[in-house]
Amino acid sequence: MISVEEARARILSGLNPVAVETISTAQAWNRVLAAQVVARVTQPPADVSAMDGYAVRAADATQGATLHVIGAAPAGHPFSGQVGTGQAVRLFTGSVMPDGADCVVLQEDATRQGDEVTLREAGGPGQHVRQAGQDFAAGDVVLQPGMRLGARRIGVAAAANHAWLHVHRLPRVAILATGDELALPGDKVGPGGVVSSNSFLLAAFIQACGAVPLVLPVAADRPEAIAAAVAGAAGADLLVTTGGASVGDHDVVQAGLARLGFDLDFWKIAMRPGKPMISGRLGDMKVLGLPGNPVSAAVCAVLFLGPALARLSGLTAAAPAVERALAGAPLPENDRRADHLRATLNRDANGEWVATPFQRQDSGLLTALTRADCLILRAPNAPPLACGEPVDIIRLEGLGV
Amino acid sequence: MISVEEARARILSGLNPVAVETISTAQAWNRVLAAQVVARVTQPPADVSAMDGYAVRAADATQGATLHVIGAAPAGHPFSGQVGTGQAVRLFTGSVMPDGADCVVLQEDATRQGDEVTLREAGGPGQHVRQAGQDFAAGDVVLQPGMRLGARRIGVAAAANHAWLHVHRLPRVAILATGDELALPGDKVGPGGVVSSNSFLLAAFIQACGAVPLVLPVAADRPEAIAAAVAGAAGADLLVTTGGASVGDHDVVQAGLARLGFDLDFWKIAMRPGKPMISGRLGDMKVLGLPGNPVSAAVCAVLFLGPALARLSGLTAAAPAVERALAGAPLPENDRRADHLRATLNRDANGEWVATPFQRQDSGLLTALTRADCLILRAPNAPPLACGEPVDIIRLEGLGV
Repeated sequence: MISVEEARARILSGLNPVAVETISTAQAWNRVLAAQVVARVTQPPADVSAMDGYAVRAADATQGATLHVIGAAPAGHPFSGQVGTGQAVRLFTGSVMPDGADCVVLQEDATRQGDEVTLREAGGPGQHVRQAGQDFAAGDVVLQPGMRLGARRIGVAAAANHAWLHVHRLPRVAILATGDELALPGDKVGPGGVVSSNSFLLAAFIQACGAVPLVLPVAADRPEAIAAAVAGAAGADLLVTTGGASVGDHDVVQAGLARLGFDLDFWKIAMRPGKPMISGRLGDMKVLGLPGNPVSAAVCAVLFLGPALARLSGLTAAAPAVERALAGAPLPENDRRADHLRATLNRDANGEWVATPFQRQDSGLLTALTRADCLILRAPNAPPLACGEPVDIIRLEGLGV
Repeated sequence: MISVEEARARILSGLNPVAVETISTAQAWNRVLAAQVVARVTQPPADVSAMDGYAVRAADATQGATLHVIGAAPAGHPFSGQVGTGQAVRLFTGSVMPDGADCVVLQEDATRQGDEVTLREAGGPGQHVRQAGQDFAAGDVVLQPGMRLGARRIGVAAAANHAWLHVHRLPRVAILATGDELALPGDKVGPGGVVSSNSFLLAAFIQACGAVPLVLPVAADRPEAIAAAVAGAAGADLLVTTGGASVGDHDVVQAGLARLGFDLDFWKIAMRPGKPMISGRLGDMKVLGLPGNPVSAAVCAVLFLGPALARLSGLTAAAPAVERALAGAPLPENDRRADHLRATLNRDANGEWVATPFQRQDSGLLTALTRADCLILRAPNAPPLACGEPVDIIRLEGLGV
């Protein structure tokens, strides 16, 4: 058995970001940049007004001064003349400062009468003026490769005059659920059968991680059936199987993959839930064999599949973020397997986060996992821990699971 | 001017969740449930083994006992006979417990030789047996309406034997950017012109919130042009405009909407950035008129559009979550407008979050907003605050912006 950390490192080794495609900036939300975005324009392109008001010469901006309004400059319609001594131009937020003016007096500090405006407040040079290039200048790098494109970054890319962006294409992940006992929802469930849920959970997780799931037909527990189903994964960047990754006589997934030339790296991690987990390669395609138990599969997805998808997507791949909370119950000594206790998370009277494990940690309880806010991490051989002591947790909300 | 809280309440009043559609569970990721999901099956459907091992009668499970293996029960293939005294059945995780057996002995605690198995550890009634219905029973409510369907909930819905789910359809949000100065990325930028970014930022934000953006053509700063463009929003649940929401002579958005019978609720919020913000209705369609300034538009999106999309989506609509941090710099007394300072967030040596505002808070700095981790909230007329004092913040990561 290897540790969780070693397993993750070995899964990530040899996984590379997928190739690059060009897409419209309008379609780029949640994509990962594959190249720098260099500003093609300067923003603002010229000195502009930061407010609605009057452009004047700062020397004229004395309290009580009355100036002659010689024109207006709505946004997009710069004033073409020159502002001379004793003159003002009406303008608005974003209007280009007219030549000769170097100060904006707010409209609420001015009284307009016909072509005259009287200033109730004095102003100085540069007042309420946004300098050209204050946000960015042409040639500035405004976004870096490896960034996930949220709304703000999309806005910056557009403002920098990029209609197209170079991003990593979406990783494709094939999912193969195996098991004679499995029926799809609504299909006939045989004796001893259960309704398949792993492929649904994993496909949703893969979507949440910004990748494209390809759900293969459920394969029966025979090596030849599994080998045949895996053929459908051609072109995928990653194959995720569930079920069959057992220490028992029935590890048919490994047997099925072996027929296709599977290169096994490891199949056992010192963790709970989820000890049996296969990692290896089929040619160029990485394979992750998750346990058939839905809770184990979900925990393995958080710990291993999420980082693998980050790496494929072009992001920095890393373990899920670990935070601190206080234990809401005493925890017993741990055995040699890293444990991941399903727990709720609430604030105590002092505002501290308290992680309280569910009394029943049976990995058969998918509904309990669904109610969990976090996993409490228990290191191998961790000593007993009193209620109120600090524990490491992984918050599940926001991880896509 | 009204407060941020009153503005949000008035925007949300009269907004209702959009209608319901039926979709495949496989397509339901990130949707919002519109009905309870009631389990149609019991999980596990029968008593099953929690481990790989041997099903025996607990009375026989004494250390050193040798039992006769009368068969095997792989998952999906229940053993049809009865386990009698002195007998055992080989089984695996998820296998149905055969009649007569009430205890599972782990395979690692047993030695198999031919048809005989010798137990190295004793066992008791119910050991390593998952009871039928331990996760859920047919008729149990496993998911509630108003829940966003993450991966775990999708898995539970499938396990409960639902191939179809009733969810709210995706809200449709029309976006209208206005301004004579605006050019689309790659298009010719006129004198005093800028490249449009708001509609890109807002469309991405709307996608991040699980809704569908409809980007209308940019409208010139003339009421008739705006009225014509707004016609394209027919069928949308919400219209978001940007630009023109000014206190100046050029509030052409209100003038354009007025031509279509706009019912104005308010247009001025005591906040910074973003004071001018229109809220009202056009017939059945709610209208939010955001400022043209990208930073102001983004902050208003976080404070108002996000909650509005939550309400439309069928979620509980609420203000963005407010957390605590320590101020990383002294903050001056605030004026009568609620302020939203763009800030970075880092942990100090004690592990406490420290929010440090950017030195320049000019609302023209879209790149600074893009680098911000949070907004520091400053209440109207808040007194000066020393470095290290607690402040309220809104974390931007995870809000879709």
